[in-house]
Amino acid sequence: MPSRYLNFRCSVPWLILLLQTLFLIHSFLGFPGAADIYSPSNFYPEFQDVNHMVLFGFGFFLMVLRRYGFSSTGFNFLLIVLGVQCSVLVEDLWVLLRVQQNEVGMRSLAKAVMSMTAVVISTGAVLGKANPVQLIVMTLVESIIFYMSRCINRTFLQVPEHLTLMHVHLFGAYFGLAASSRFPGPPPGLDKNRSTPKSDLFSMLGTVFVWVFWPSFNSILAGSKREAVLNTYLALAVSAVAAFMLSALTSKDGKFRMTHIHSAVLAGGVTISYTAHSIQHPWIAMILGLLGSVITILGSHCLQRCFNPALKLQDTSGVHFTFGLPAVLGAVAAVVLCVVQRGIETQWNNLSSLGYLIFVDLGAFCQTISTALITGWITGLILNIKLLKAVHVSKYFDDQFYWEFPHLSVGF
Amino acid sequence: MPSRYLNFRCSVPWLILLLQTLFLIHSFLGFPGAADIYSPSNFYPEFQDVNHMVLFGFGFFLMVLRRYGFSSTGFNFLLIVLGVQCSVLVEDLWVLLRVQQNEVGMRSLAKAVMSMTAVVISTGAVLGKANPVQLIVMTLVESIIFYMSRCINRTFLQVPEHLTLMHVHLFGAYFGLAASSRFPGPPPGLDKNRSTPKSDLFSMLGTVFVWVFWPSFNSILAGSKREAVLNTYLALAVSAVAAFMLSALTSKDGKFRMTHIHSAVLAGGVTISYTAHSIQHPWIAMILGLLGSVITILGSHCLQRCFNPALKLQDTSGVHFTFGLPAVLGAVAAVVLCVVQRGIETQWNNLSSLGYLIFVDLGAFCQTISTALITGWITGLILNIKLLKAVHVSKYFDDQFYWEFPHLSVGF
Amino acid sequence: MPSRYLNFRCSVPWLILLLQTLFLIHSFLGFPGAADIYSPSNFYPEFQDVNHMVLFGFGFFLMVLRRYGFSSTGFNFLLIVLGVQCSVLVEDLWVLLRVQQNEVGMRSLAKAVMSMTAVVISTGAVLGKANPVQLIVMTLVESIIFYMSRCINRTFLQVPEHLTLMHVHLFGAYFGLAASSRFPGPPPGLDKNRSTPKSDLFSMLGTVFVWVFWPSFNSILAGSKREAVLNTYLALAVSAVAAFMLSALTSKDGKFRMTHIHSAVLAGGVTISYTAHSIQHPWIAMILGLLGSVITILGSHCLQRCFNPALKLQDTSGVHFTFGLPAVLGAVAAVVLCVVQRGIETQWNNLSSLGYLIFVDLGAFCQTISTALITGWITGLILNIKLLKAVHVSKYFDDQFYWEFPHLSVGF
Repeated sequence: MPSRYLNFRCSVPWLILLLQTLFLIHSFLGFPGAADIYSPSNFYPEFQDVNHMVLFGFGFFLMVLRRYGFSSTGFNFLLIVLGVQCSVLVEDLWVLLRVQQNEVGMRSLAKAVMSMTAVVISTGAVLGKANPVQLIVMTLVESIIFYMSRCINRTFLQVPEHLTLMHVHLFGAYFGLAASSRFPGPPPGLDKNRSTPKSDLFSMLGTVFVWVFWPSFNSILAGSKREAVLNTYLALAVSAVAAFMLSALTSKDGKFRMTHIHSAVLAGGVTISYTAHSIQHPWIAMILGLLGSVITILGSHCLQRCFNPALKLQDTSGVHFTFGLPAVLGAVAAVVLCVVQRGIETQWNNLSSLGYLIFVDLGAFCQTISTALITGWITGLILNIKLLKAVHVSKYFDDQFYWEFPHLSVGF
Repeated sequence: MPSRYLNFRCSVPWLILLLQTLFLIHSFLGFPGAADIYSPSNFYPEFQDVNHMVLFGFGFFLMVLRRYGFSSTGFNFLLIVLGVQCSVLVEDLWVLLRVQQNEVGMRSLAKAVMSMTAVVISTGAVLGKANPVQLIVMTLVESIIFYMSRCINRTFLQVPEHLTLMHVHLFGAYFGLAASSRFPGPPPGLDKNRSTPKSDLFSMLGTVFVWVFWPSFNSILAGSKREAVLNTYLALAVSAVAAFMLSALTSKDGKFRMTHIHSAVLAGGVTISYTAHSIQHPWIAMILGLLGSVITILGSHCLQRCFNPALKLQDTSGVHFTFGLPAVLGAVAAVVLCVVQRGIETQWNNLSSLGYLIFVDLGAFCQTISTALITGWITGLILNIKLLKAVHVSKYFDDQFYWEFPHLSVGF
Repeated sequence: MPSRYLNFRCSVPWLILLLQTLFLIHSFLGFPGAADIYSPSNFYPEFQDVNHMVLFGFGFFLMVLRRYGFSSTGFNFLLIVLGVQCSVLVEDLWVLLRVQQNEVGMRSLAKAVMSMTAVVISTGAVLGKANPVQLIVMTLVESIIFYMSRCINRTFLQVPEHLTLMHVHLFGAYFGLAASSRFPGPPPGLDKNRSTPKSDLFSMLGTVFVWVFWPSFNSILAGSKREAVLNTYLALAVSAVAAFMLSALTSKDGKFRMTHIHSAVLAGGVTISYTAHSIQHPWIAMILGLLGSVITILGSHCLQRCFNPALKLQDTSGVHFTFGLPAVLGAVAAVVLCVVQRGIETQWNNLSSLGYLIFVDLGAFCQTISTALITGWITGLILNIKLLKAVHVSKYFDDQFYWEFPHLSVGF
């Protein structure tokens, strides 16, 4: 089908060029000089960690399909470098509109890199089914809408800024799920959406990276970094232990399953993300890590057997139970912990202020998840119009559709 | 053998659950709040490095067997997250018993992560022969005994705390060796305990990680960080150069051998670990790195040909010559250097104080190595009782015994 | 050919031993104590990043040949640890000769590690064609000559020291190219100089590492670190976006080509290296990143079709367009930017000072590139004399010529 290829060829590079020109013009017009509020010596190593985690860790974490390694890492790279620039532009435009003090430099970049996690997670839901044009459009739309959702939380619900960023897992997972529901499913006989031991090993490599750098992710913008690091580490440790336990309990013959390990070792980091900076007792962090792991592994069984077939969802790399459910749990836990703590402080006298707290936290949660679901569904619809040249289902999960393979023996 | 599998299934997850509950209860009762003595800006990047080195570096360093990649990285991950919690618990209990000032937070975690190196090294000695139950029991026993051995050194021999942790390589290697001597050997025809070029490449990847992060490991708790970093780097550089030289000298046709490189490039880091913070002249560090590499490569030839067959030892990933012998050399070198330095300072007048120094240093060394050998041997005995369901020798070195392989083509 | 092997065996280890002894003697005689000007807390994380980038990132970046994985990473490791010591020695000798204040410790090591990038890049040009003896000789010669070239720039042209180090890409690429022109080409039918999907994936892994750590490389010695980090990150991001765009535009059917991505995502970092610390407007950094990517991908087409066959160059891993051309562009851009900035400051009145500026910058550029070409060509001649036992062309690109393969199935 040369014509389809030709169309494809026409659209991708010009779309990228258009975007890059836009970012350049914006940078020429408005991007401020290279100054920074934070001193780099405090800030730079954590920024580097987050950068490494998002680019390298998630890139290899997503390498679960047997014939999709180049695309998993390559497109992840492209989407992040595009999305970071888009996020910085959106933030600058917003600041321009509201004549606020601009917060520039590395802090702005760090927030942009962190909000790319939403894009990476959504990409995981449509992994192997979306072509680069669709992925780029999704990245742009998601970056903008996630920024707006953060703005609403910050402006109307007075959520502190670093907490608005922690909705990134929730938003990414449900946006991706809603979008993936509009993609046609793979044909029944297709075996390319399986993993091989080697792709699982590369994915394990990425998982360990994400695990190790997660404390930096949760602490980089938090005020009390020590607590954030310590609580995140403990939650991650407990969820890793629980992952092995539950994997052996739930699988046949008591063997471990690699996909369980990949998902559940990270659940603790997602669950703790809302509360890492404020938990004062490590055992609470550990309980949250344990619950995160439990909900991930139980979720992976329930969702894949009941929920996904019923709703005709195809969640290629399991972002619903890896990021979605633990984030919901984390948001609920944040509300409970906040109320309990405030309640103990005020000896349960000031119930109206407690009610307001619950309203704000639940409001931010509901606003984020509903925005994600609605806009994700609409984005899914837009992505599947004729113009964007959706991939035929027989070409799903295949590197050779997007990459040149000049190799003699394609033994991958 | 479904019954054996069923037994296995019954034990692993419940054992893990029991341990995790214990850790949670301890954390609820006694774990102090998230405060820290060190300011995180100085300390966190090094902690991250050590964490990365132990989890990722050693996990992939151990991936030398052709059909044991999942277990090498996966079990390494599980044992470390379990062992870290166990170490923190043991330290807390000890502090509680002695009514000491508790040293909490990230410093305590960093020490726990560092002492996990002993567990990782011991795991290397029984790699592919122990099942998860045995590995978990070994991890717990070793964490506790290593903490006790450190306590004896600190309390009775007045060894500074960061030096007691540097016995971690010595302890891990000889504990693992003694334990592995109680495991039955693999049948002669088994070819699964070989490496493939791909597993060697992954192991090289892990080795480079461990190499790069070693200066952080040696300097994180030391008082004079600059010296520790510089000396460790120089020792590692020289041992890497010597590794290539000796590998070409000792192998047939002057070719390099990958297993030599893996072991010997790290020898310098082990050898220098006791003295990295105190050496004032870089050439001494370089000589130590060179000697470490020499002893590793000569050791690998002598041990594998004479010593191991005579004692019926099977040291799967060669921890005896990779970590054991260089650590012995380093301990001896530390005594010599300390005596020479003190002797020069006092112009060899105060011989009794010199004798006391030698007594203390040699005492700590002998106590550590004998504790490791005796308790390792006993642990090996315990691990091979019927209750723990030792793996049949025909199932050695095989991922499929522990992991589900839902892949169509198990081309690993 | 046992005799050739025997000769080979005789030379490599003794050569390494000789060098290591030399370094040890120097270290005994002159290496100063482990003191440092910089406080380690500011400096150490960046040093670690650069170290990681050079050892791990470039080691796996070079792993593009299908049967040359062991040698790519292994020899890269050996050459860096040798070359770092050689660079420190050369710097010390030079300081001794000129009775200068010696700048010691980690700063000296960091400069040595950074200057190793030149060696790594040159190695890329002769990848698979040079044997270890040739590579070691090349490393020594190149370390010394690069230090001399930096000295000339610093002494006669008053280039600041951290900028003299930024010529490392330019020097490495043209030195390597000139040297590789003296190696006989591979026979036409040889298919070992191809990549496989797996080697491309490992190379992608290395590329992402180099990309992530590049801001540390450009900022470690710069005075204004914040600007250097921010500008480098933006240039790298734009060049990564442009790499995907241009790869789809220039290849058949609009598919992406992995080798394009490998080269062009890094082009921004090379191009910005001279000016990262001084650019005040981020859009200039972004434009430079874009141009770097354009010149790399266009260069890869022009050079491989016209230039290389005409000059009988074989540039195995494409260092000419990956590092050479972007460095030339960066040097020209540095001159232009410097002149424009000074011109605006002085309102174009002081033209003679502008002329002097241009003279100095262009002088440093021309001196570096001509030194690289001439000495590289001479080194290439020396490397191909009989004494150094050049590899026969039929043995090019093959691990088995240098490494023992005790594996049953060499399925790599």
